[in-house]
Amino acid sequence: METRFFTGENRIIDVKGIKIGHGHMPVMIAGPCAVENEDQIFSTAQAIHKAGANILRGGVFKPRTSPYVFQGLGKEGLIMLKNVADSLNMPIITELMDMKNLDSVYQYADIIQIGSRSMYNYPLLKLLGTVDKPILLKRGMSATISEWILAAEYIAVHGNTDVILCERGIRTFETYTRNTLDLSAVPIMKMKTGLPIIVDPSHGTGRRELIKPMSKAALASGADGLMIEVHNNPERALSDGKQSITPEQFNDIMLEIKPFCNQI
Amino acid sequence: METRFFTGENRIIDVKGIKIGHGHMPVMIAGPCAVENEDQIFSTAQAIHKAGANILRGGVFKPRTSPYVFQGLGKEGLIMLKNVADSLNMPIITELMDMKNLDSVYQYADIIQIGSRSMYNYPLLKLLGTVDKPILLKRGMSATISEWILAAEYIAVHGNTDVILCERGIRTFETYTRNTLDLSAVPIMKMKTGLPIIVDPSHGTGRRELIKPMSKAALASGADGLMIEVHNNPERALSDGKQSITPEQFNDIMLEIKPFCNQI
Amino acid sequence: METRFFTGENRIIDVKGIKIGHGHMPVMIAGPCAVENEDQIFSTAQAIHKAGANILRGGVFKPRTSPYVFQGLGKEGLIMLKNVADSLNMPIITELMDMKNLDSVYQYADIIQIGSRSMYNYPLLKLLGTVDKPILLKRGMSATISEWILAAEYIAVHGNTDVILCERGIRTFETYTRNTLDLSAVPIMKMKTGLPIIVDPSHGTGRRELIKPMSKAALASGADGLMIEVHNNPERALSDGKQSITPEQFNDIMLEIKPFCNQI
Amino acid sequence: METRFFTGENRIIDVKGIKIGHGHMPVMIAGPCAVENEDQIFSTAQAIHKAGANILRGGVFKPRTSPYVFQGLGKEGLIMLKNVADSLNMPIITELMDMKNLDSVYQYADIIQIGSRSMYNYPLLKLLGTVDKPILLKRGMSATISEWILAAEYIAVHGNTDVILCERGIRTFETYTRNTLDLSAVPIMKMKTGLPIIVDPSHGTGRRELIKPMSKAALASGADGLMIEVHNNPERALSDGKQSITPEQFNDIMLEIKPFCNQI
Repeated sequence: METRFFTGENRIIDVKGIKIGHGHMPVMIAGPCAVENEDQIFSTAQAIHKAGANILRGGVFKPRTSPYVFQGLGKEGLIMLKNVADSLNMPIITELMDMKNLDSVYQYADIIQIGSRSMYNYPLLKLLGTVDKPILLKRGMSATISEWILAAEYIAVHGNTDVILCERGIRTFETYTRNTLDLSAVPIMKMKTGLPIIVDPSHGTGRRELIKPMSKAALASGADGLMIEVHNNPERALSDGKQSITPEQFNDIMLEIKPFCNQI
Repeated sequence: METRFFTGENRIIDVKGIKIGHGHMPVMIAGPCAVENEDQIFSTAQAIHKAGANILRGGVFKPRTSPYVFQGLGKEGLIMLKNVADSLNMPIITELMDMKNLDSVYQYADIIQIGSRSMYNYPLLKLLGTVDKPILLKRGMSATISEWILAAEYIAVHGNTDVILCERGIRTFETYTRNTLDLSAVPIMKMKTGLPIIVDPSHGTGRRELIKPMSKAALASGADGLMIEVHNNPERALSDGKQSITPEQFNDIMLEIKPFCNQI
Repeated sequence: METRFFTGENRIIDVKGIKIGHGHMPVMIAGPCAVENEDQIFSTAQAIHKAGANILRGGVFKPRTSPYVFQGLGKEGLIMLKNVADSLNMPIITELMDMKNLDSVYQYADIIQIGSRSMYNYPLLKLLGTVDKPILLKRGMSATISEWILAAEYIAVHGNTDVILCERGIRTFETYTRNTLDLSAVPIMKMKTGLPIIVDPSHGTGRRELIKPMSKAALASGADGLMIEVHNNPERALSDGKQSITPEQFNDIMLEIKPFCNQI
Repeated sequence: METRFFTGENRIIDVKGIKIGHGHMPVMIAGPCAVENEDQIFSTAQAIHKAGANILRGGVFKPRTSPYVFQGLGKEGLIMLKNVADSLNMPIITELMDMKNLDSVYQYADIIQIGSRSMYNYPLLKLLGTVDKPILLKRGMSATISEWILAAEYIAVHGNTDVILCERGIRTFETYTRNTLDLSAVPIMKMKTGLPIIVDPSHGTGRRELIKPMSKAALASGADGLMIEVHNNPERALSDGKQSITPEQFNDIMLEIKPFCNQI
């Protein structure tokens, strides 16, 4: 496996003044799986901001397994997300799957997310290589370490080396959890690429009650941040309710992980 | 899992007069992983046509794991492929990964292939739903039966119900083979969707010596056809040489599978 | 991986005059998952014998995942099995998991089965290496090709080279089937060891409706036989009912696979 | 899945005065994969004891995948292990695979280990259910959460409820690591069974450089202890050298994990 850009030297990525990577305080990205309406996103964003989250997440162009379920609010949702984020002075991250939405996403988002279903989408990787915003590159559901690194190289070779990795669980035989969170990927990717890596315990486990212990474990393994699904009313969430936590639960996690953050 | 289009009723797909699906003779798709030059594609195509292949395959826009290796000849290769195919009166199939190549691929190809890396690429599936050519939909590397069916529904819901499925092996712990060919998917997908399904033993095993037994097994399991990588000089192939067979070996397979074809 | 005994030379194993392996008619092993009572085993055995099964299977010392479910009839069941088999002049196969049952199993069984849960049980493999009866060695649930071959070597190095392999599916992410039947293991194991290999489509799929197509595929891939769970009343089976077929369905399979058997 | 014994209530297990489980300081088990000779075990044991390890591990009856490699020193090795441990006042743990070695292992060991290859060996589980010493039950290579819990119930139903669980990695498609360490199993098993659970990052990753970060992550996820392979000369280890660390590296880990231990 040839790598030209990410060979182990530590890289720090700056998102509107928030430094992500080696030696910096872990970044806390939180928000709902999908932006549903103004009340939901406003109430959720306010609460997580108060609890200490740095960056607001929210899906608006949703890559759903079934064509027959809610596909996201699109640009309208993005504007809602942006308005709330601006009022709280938080950067936002959202997923881009369809190239034709690049302009909208580029206009509003501070970090552009490549979801796990798109990690092998080389045309998309190339396109985002031409963009001057940081890219969060999720690991594919069954991507090897080597394939994941080469996906990052695809972005870099086209001009953008601001790549943040995100471990979100891999597909295994185990069905108790939605995925198997592979925390060994954290030290491996840091050693091999030097890129910042954050962990998504929400998709990584698919179970609300596992978010807290796995958040702590992720930081202890060396993760540069977390991305957690928070919803003001998980029982009524239009997607991923089972793995979403309430703002109160998020606040509780933030209190518990403080010791891990300070050990940096 | 909601399905609206593919609920088990048998569908026959017509590709320039070749009928694919329930009750018809298995279709034989063969050719090199990548079109490399005129000599290679001409010599390979002639030999497989003589051996009995119905449809010519060849990659020109290659989705490669590494950005640093041969990425295919692009439109130039497509024209080579088309010229050779026309001289032999064979339809051609090639993969489309990047939407911006749709016009070229649509102009020349008779079947458009969605590769395993693109099975979750919903924008691409939607786009190909608007096209009036048959789509060959490969199973994602770790796609469940349910996800695969829903990917086919994505195409259909946008207007194109001419979907041919292709089992090409799944990712498991076993490393002796490149993938684990899941032949149980053949009867399952036929029962559940009614769509034609073909098997790719080349990617499904990654090993030349396994192509023949797995081709026979695929047909015995009920597959409506095979897709096999054949190269006039596998040792010098620019990609996938280890799993490519020579035209002579392909001819040998064609002779051995005849009894299975006639049992239809 | 060092192998001393099984290096590719074809071995034929004789079970009371039935020849198993290279060049011989596929052997048909059938019977219930567990022996439950005299009526059940008698009625099932008679029907499968009439349909053409050569060898009778039946579990009496059952390795069950839960300690709280039916564990088999033990020696009493073995005697039932033997009486029925003798009346039909069929050899019998049963599983041995607990070494302390070796005497009973040795006394009555013609083939001793090592189940998938025991493939790594080296003390058991060594013990069965000292026995002068053929051993059917099932692949472990997540055993690699290499581990499986070395398990066979464990038996051989202790004196018994009459090993019949059995592919019964591996554990993967797919949940639609109980396991993923890895038919590529058939040609691989034949090439690498020369040992006879049979396929168990019942455990390999866990679904009744897949037994027939996968039986045909197994034979087409080169399998030297099949082992199929048949129960006179699958809906009431004490274990594995979902994957058991009726004697009528077994008869139907026997008729359909005839062409595959004659191609040997 | 029926459970009768381990339903979530916290259990503390006492090993010669060392309390393992809920609310107690994490236990540190260390030592070589295999006892090789007196010098090796003495030098390693002294160093890890000094670094703060509580319990000495060492394999003497080794379950090796190949019958052609070093199988352990047997009882002779056990006596070496015991002598060294006594001189340091450390309890010892060793694996039992073959029932016929129970007397020797029972005589010398303070904790009896059931290895991952034996998790489905129900006769062995039943036998150890009759023993009055704590059992360390490793997760099988591809055991589900449910199967693992039921394996613990097999031990308990025969009389022994002193079961310590051990997560040691599961088998997945990823080949960069020897196994994929599933740390989500730690909070899951604690919630569902209440049993103490320790983590083995040595087998769980198979790579020396990952032991430290994964040790920290394991404790952060709630593990009640660690089991780490330490060898006085890893390059010359007769087994598992690649994943063994030196006593100096172990000492370094002990220093780094102190903050995690004190958070209990």
